[in-house]
Amino acid sequence: MNLDSLMWDERGLISVIFQDRETGEVLVLGYMNREALQRTLETGRAHLFRRSHGRVMVKGEQSGRFQLVREIWVDCDADAIIMEIEQVGGAACHTGHRSCFHRKLVGGKLEVVGEPVFDPKKVYGQ
Amino acid sequence: MNLDSLMWDERGLISVIFQDRETGEVLVLGYMNREALQRTLETGRAHLFRRSHGRVMVKGEQSGRFQLVREIWVDCDADAIIMEIEQVGGAACHTGHRSCFHRKLVGGKLEVVGEPVFDPKKVYGQ
Repeated sequence: MNLDSLMWDERGLISVIFQDRETGEVLVLGYMNREALQRTLETGRAHLFRRSHGRVMVKGEQSGRFQLVREIWVDCDADAIIMEIEQVGGAACHTGHRSCFHRKLVGGKLEVVGEPVFDPKKVYGQ
Repeated sequence: MNLDSLMWDERGLISVIFQDRETGEVLVLGYMNREALQRTLETGRAHLFRRSHGRVMVKGEQSGRFQLVREIWVDCDADAIIMEIEQVGGAACHTGHRSCFHRKLVGGKLEVVGEPVFDPKKVYGQ
């Protein structure tokens, strides 16, 4: 893929939706810069540009919960990507939940749905 | 939902993933400002802030292909939303394809997968 054919935003980033290949569940919305996308294509493991860290990190760097990329789709105006992945270790979210999208709007309030798969204190420390 | 509890970006926008409620297919990644989200919550129809138009538009304003919002999920850091929707008229993309994500990366090149559901020339004019 010619990376110049993608519409990088003013920060040099593109939005990437990570979707479970088996269930169709959306696990994460993240951002890649060119380096993150290049490293993802080369290794088959999702890499993100983490704005909070200011650098490229492999998804699962701390937790070991990598994402193995199986298919890549680009949208009509080339400013968003879907990566269909296999989630290693059962969960994608730093809270221990399978998906980052685990809060549902019910009666005007957000309710947590489901239980964490792992204990973040044990994985990331206190 | 208290709109102040969401993490609006420096443009006053939040990313919204529109996912088919039945099939799990991701149809669109769009952006909402506060007005678009408020109007979506009030009407049950997806409204977007269209950056190219500089204003809030109901999804399907020109094509009649509305999106009826059935469930709303918010991610762990409150900077992204999933709306599970019913797609009216069979397609979400201005190209006539069901999903905006209809180009797959195969052997390093993007290939269009599937056929358009409608003819955009007939819907939007030449």
